Amino acid sequence: MQTAMIAAAAPLAGAGALAQTPKKKLGVALCGLGGLSTNQIAPALQKTRHCELVGVVSSDRQKSKQWQTKYNIPDRNVYTYDTIEKMIDNPDIDIVYVVTPNALHLDHSVAAAKAGKHVFCEKPMEITVERCQKMIDACKKADRLLGVAYRCQTEPHHLECIRIAREKELGNIKMIEGGFGISVGDPNQWRLKHSLSGGGALMDVGIYLLQATRYITGEEPVMVTALESKTDAKKFAEVDETMTWTSTFPSGVVAYCGASFNTALMSRFNVQTDRGSFGMEPAFNYGGLKGHRSDGKPLDFPQVDQFATELDDFARCILENKPTRVSGEEGMQDVKILTAIYESARTGKAVKI
Amino acid sequence: MQTAMIAAAAPLAGAGALAQTPKKKLGVALCGLGGLSTNQIAPALQKTRHCELVGVVSSDRQKSKQWQTKYNIPDRNVYTYDTIEKMIDNPDIDIVYVVTPNALHLDHSVAAAKAGKHVFCEKPMEITVERCQKMIDACKKADRLLGVAYRCQTEPHHLECIRIAREKELGNIKMIEGGFGISVGDPNQWRLKHSLSGGGALMDVGIYLLQATRYITGEEPVMVTALESKTDAKKFAEVDETMTWTSTFPSGVVAYCGASFNTALMSRFNVQTDRGSFGMEPAFNYGGLKGHRSDGKPLDFPQVDQFATELDDFARCILENKPTRVSGEEGMQDVKILTAIYESARTGKAVKI
Repeated sequence: MQTAMIAAAAPLAGAGALAQTPKKKLGVALCGLGGLSTNQIAPALQKTRHCELVGVVSSDRQKSKQWQTKYNIPDRNVYTYDTIEKMIDNPDIDIVYVVTPNALHLDHSVAAAKAGKHVFCEKPMEITVERCQKMIDACKKADRLLGVAYRCQTEPHHLECIRIAREKELGNIKMIEGGFGISVGDPNQWRLKHSLSGGGALMDVGIYLLQATRYITGEEPVMVTALESKTDAKKFAEVDETMTWTSTFPSGVVAYCGASFNTALMSRFNVQTDRGSFGMEPAFNYGGLKGHRSDGKPLDFPQVDQFATELDDFARCILENKPTRVSGEEGMQDVKILTAIYESARTGKAVKI
Repeated sequence: MQTAMIAAAAPLAGAGALAQTPKKKLGVALCGLGGLSTNQIAPALQKTRHCELVGVVSSDRQKSKQWQTKYNIPDRNVYTYDTIEKMIDNPDIDIVYVVTPNALHLDHSVAAAKAGKHVFCEKPMEITVERCQKMIDACKKADRLLGVAYRCQTEPHHLECIRIAREKELGNIKMIEGGFGISVGDPNQWRLKHSLSGGGALMDVGIYLLQATRYITGEEPVMVTALESKTDAKKFAEVDETMTWTSTFPSGVVAYCGASFNTALMSRFNVQTDRGSFGMEPAFNYGGLKGHRSDGKPLDFPQVDQFATELDDFARCILENKPTRVSGEEGMQDVKILTAIYESARTGKAVKI
């Protein structure tokens, strides 16, 4: 990690200086060793070109031990949630990837920033706008890059949809429809506890639609309305089981979307223009994504490991001293809109953003 | 028309009496000779088994003449909007199919009922609930059958979707998403004049989604929210160009839908259950309909002439003394919900139905 350390020591030094530096991998510590880290992120970090898994943060000593064995992680790179700030003395670690429950992102991100580490954080960024702002402030103060793990923003099909939209290749966008539904299993998982998640289906899967409507239009919604529905009041006692919402954008585009924790897998969006349409289905899965265009031309790219791609993109931003497209401000904007959707569902009133 | 006349003379006489009567075709007078009558309904009436085109109602003498020539219509079966009530003396005509602008449905339907004719009326039934009620009252008073031209309710793919829903063949319904967008051409058409149409995209095409969400769930929505959007304030000065809405149903099903007068053709709905999904795309076109099921089984039927099918279904109801599935009450319920959606869009508040 010698060269990575140099890069980390002067991460914003500019591309010129970097060009003379052999590109080595930045060291990533995974903070939170749940299902996503185990099944997606750690395997992805075996494929990344610009970063690699070098450390873990967990309260579970046993689990850390297993990870150490599996991924050859030295004792010096193993932390608990209470010792994150001690990373300041550890040159192996350049990036802390925060994969803990939503309401813990602030604490873990601030600790990582204080330790001089760049912060990559799972979505949603946090559970309130204020907490997002604190994360931004902490990383700014520490002069570290903050990114939110919006994997679709570096996925080829999604990027192609953005290109089609920007170039108006299939006409002017009029409407966007989208749905993301999953069936959550374990009734005891943190996603169903409001204090840890900040919300249910909308926070966890609806955010993908929010993102899609924003990056496809390149605009910010100005008004939202929403309705919530519950069919299992016990399992979803604390969070939204199903949420539907509509939103309008400055150009007149309208979006109507649905998110649920209690359906078979549904993962799609469709962009309707004045001349045709395009979209994806499935749209938000980890793999097997498929695009469609009304003119019959292919919207088809090789499947990528989205976690590897987003991590490499973030690492490149650090190495090349570039801003990230998935900034803290971007993450905070989503939390702002999520909050407005919840407010509309609660009050029964359209909410201006 | 001799036998039809007998049937018409005792239309509610019961299936027993009818069984002894040779089934002859009921006579239909088309009221309003615009594009829909010209291009869809008149051709359909050449294929119907239980009814046939025998008369016309139009203010355009020239147009009536052309129709007389084309469809061999005798002078005695030609009426203007002011002379509909004179049909009382005309045994050729059993059914008046009202295909005039929405806000004229009441007058033309009441006149037809007063003339002792059964009334089949284009959708939306009328522009207010009160006017719908008057149509119902007039037909009830005249002891005539009143039906609304909801062609999807006799279309095989839609009927199969209803069956799948009722039998829970693919699970319990959780969410329904749907969109119907068209590009309206002539800026001077009546659909864009509020006094004649009562509304724009929602009234004209959104109603198909409203219908679909109702007949698929077999439930009535209890709450709606909506947002309207305009990108061409001149063309759509009087009516809604684009409307999106969400609705909840007693069982917890939620629907999120969009309707537009200013997109390329979009015509779809998708029903998401806890075990899979089913739906149609295109869903609301005159032909070429396609269904889909998440289990990969076909949802595929021969294409029918939907206008012929709905007219024969209505005629059979008359001949067999049965209620129609597309009753005036059914049409009025849609107008009630449309009104609530408009209210929500106008007030920015969720509206309870």
